[in-house]
Amino acid sequence: MRRGRDVPALVDAARGGDPRAVARLISLVEDGDPALPEVAAAMAARAGTAQVIGLTGSPGVGKSTTTNELVRALRARGGRVGVLAVDPSSPFTGGAILGDRVRMQDHATDSGVYIRSMSSRGHLGGLAAATPQAVRVLEGAGCDVVLVETVGVGQAEVEVASLADTTLVLLAPGMGDAIQAVKAGILEIADVFVVNKADRDGADATYRDIQGMIALGERAPGDWRPAVLRSVASRGEGVEEILAAIDKHRAWLVEHGELVRRREARAAAEIEAIALATLRSRISSLREGTALSKLAAAVASGELDPHTAARNLLDGLEVQGS
Amino acid sequence: MRRGRDVPALVDAARGGDPRAVARLISLVEDGDPALPEVAAAMAARAGTAQVIGLTGSPGVGKSTTTNELVRALRARGGRVGVLAVDPSSPFTGGAILGDRVRMQDHATDSGVYIRSMSSRGHLGGLAAATPQAVRVLEGAGCDVVLVETVGVGQAEVEVASLADTTLVLLAPGMGDAIQAVKAGILEIADVFVVNKADRDGADATYRDIQGMIALGERAPGDWRPAVLRSVASRGEGVEEILAAIDKHRAWLVEHGELVRRREARAAAEIEAIALATLRSRISSLREGTALSKLAAAVASGELDPHTAARNLLDGLEVQGS
Repeated sequence: MRRGRDVPALVDAARGGDPRAVARLISLVEDGDPALPEVAAAMAARAGTAQVIGLTGSPGVGKSTTTNELVRALRARGGRVGVLAVDPSSPFTGGAILGDRVRMQDHATDSGVYIRSMSSRGHLGGLAAATPQAVRVLEGAGCDVVLVETVGVGQAEVEVASLADTTLVLLAPGMGDAIQAVKAGILEIADVFVVNKADRDGADATYRDIQGMIALGERAPGDWRPAVLRSVASRGEGVEEILAAIDKHRAWLVEHGELVRRREARAAAEIEAIALATLRSRISSLREGTALSKLAAAVASGELDPHTAARNLLDGLEVQGS
Repeated sequence: MRRGRDVPALVDAARGGDPRAVARLISLVEDGDPALPEVAAAMAARAGTAQVIGLTGSPGVGKSTTTNELVRALRARGGRVGVLAVDPSSPFTGGAILGDRVRMQDHATDSGVYIRSMSSRGHLGGLAAATPQAVRVLEGAGCDVVLVETVGVGQAEVEVASLADTTLVLLAPGMGDAIQAVKAGILEIADVFVVNKADRDGADATYRDIQGMIALGERAPGDWRPAVLRSVASRGEGVEEILAAIDKHRAWLVEHGELVRRREARAAAEIEAIALATLRSRISSLREGTALSKLAAAVASGELDPHTAARNLLDGLEVQGS
């Protein structure tokens, strides 16, 4: 760990709600710090205490405004709220997200709210491992609800959003989002659709498109049927209805044993992502050695094919222990 | 392998220039078919016989028009030409690229040209492994030049484009591309910049911006200084100059021993990507077993932290042999 502060002290401070300690721990997560296993071990005892809500949608549909209003409504209920704003699509837009957070200044002085942007920092696929770990930190720091907001609608966003107990998909009129949603597999992961900017032209058409797609989807009896709501988040309209739909979905999750199932699936994905990241870093460490460069030279000259070379490389890789 | 045709026969047919055999082999690459090691072994003997040219740029700068004109000019020299059009940014736009290829109908009846679109088919990072393997197939099929065209300017595009001997970056006036290029690390990988649509307003400014950025870049004596050209690909203007710059860069590569160095770096990246894909599929195969679900349940309930679980999972992973 950098800067010489010990993990137990940081964890204690985070548990006590110290926002700087929380920030430091999430930075450790983003950086893939060697102290992570220790952080995770300290947080394990509080696993499952936070409700995790995912929120995704294309740029411009009003995600941060909606998040802002949801935070306000959740705070009115009393619990502590954490927000993770994640951009999986680019390692370069961290600044842009942070700029967006300006709209959340409403909550800047509220000690019951913790807001944090996360970028992938150039590590492809790294957010699949980092996001659940950051959720664990917020959970460990006593957040009752963690909102994970992802920018964009693509494969990576679907992956991150699917880590939530309940996933909200925001749409806006006239953006062709309905079709995009189908293409990106959003229909499979959305528990609640929200047509935001519902006062604009085309909102009814978007609403009907989504309802139509849901009607076409296959569901077994007892399966959750995605709710479709309308909102005008900029005026706070429809926000209570969104929370009510989230509550209803949560009750359904509990009733059908789905909450446990989802959380086990999330844990499995997290374990896999950490295992893969571990192996990747071990492969990278082989770069410094001579094995890879010898194999590369043999492949470049045509003596060896790359698959045989990869097998040779793996034969020299130690995966046991750590 | 699917559809029961044996690999040696496919490879023989591809070597003979049969476009359907080439298509089938590239599909095997895209699908990560178990027969790939056999394909790669058969192609290894022709490693390094093709010149690989990368071409990247934002949507709308005229990539496919430029590729089309480059193919025409290369064909006039006599050799066989392969084109791979790769979209790393989305697994869903395969169709869009194919639509774009309509502009390449000029070469549809030319048996000396092979054109193929490749999408990532949802496998994150998969193109880093698949693209060089597809290049090998085209090389094995007797292509003297392989053009790898990538859509967009982002991390993944940079990765794919950097697999080439010579990398062209296309820009167009007034798209803020110069700044984008710096952000995305394009400046580091471009050997030749082409300001396309040079007859439009703002072309001079874009040209100057790029020249200015290159002047600011650090280079050791003897390093290649990126060329900056202008073209109007839709009228075929500037295409011969692009080819001349590629030739000049190639001569520089050979003279400085850089061609071998680049190809070894490419081979190393390819070996790593294959090794990682192999490990990933072995981890996925553990999903069917009970080990991961037991660990996931323990993590979800807070008995275990995910890092300890990942270590336990790796302890049970066999990486030796295959």
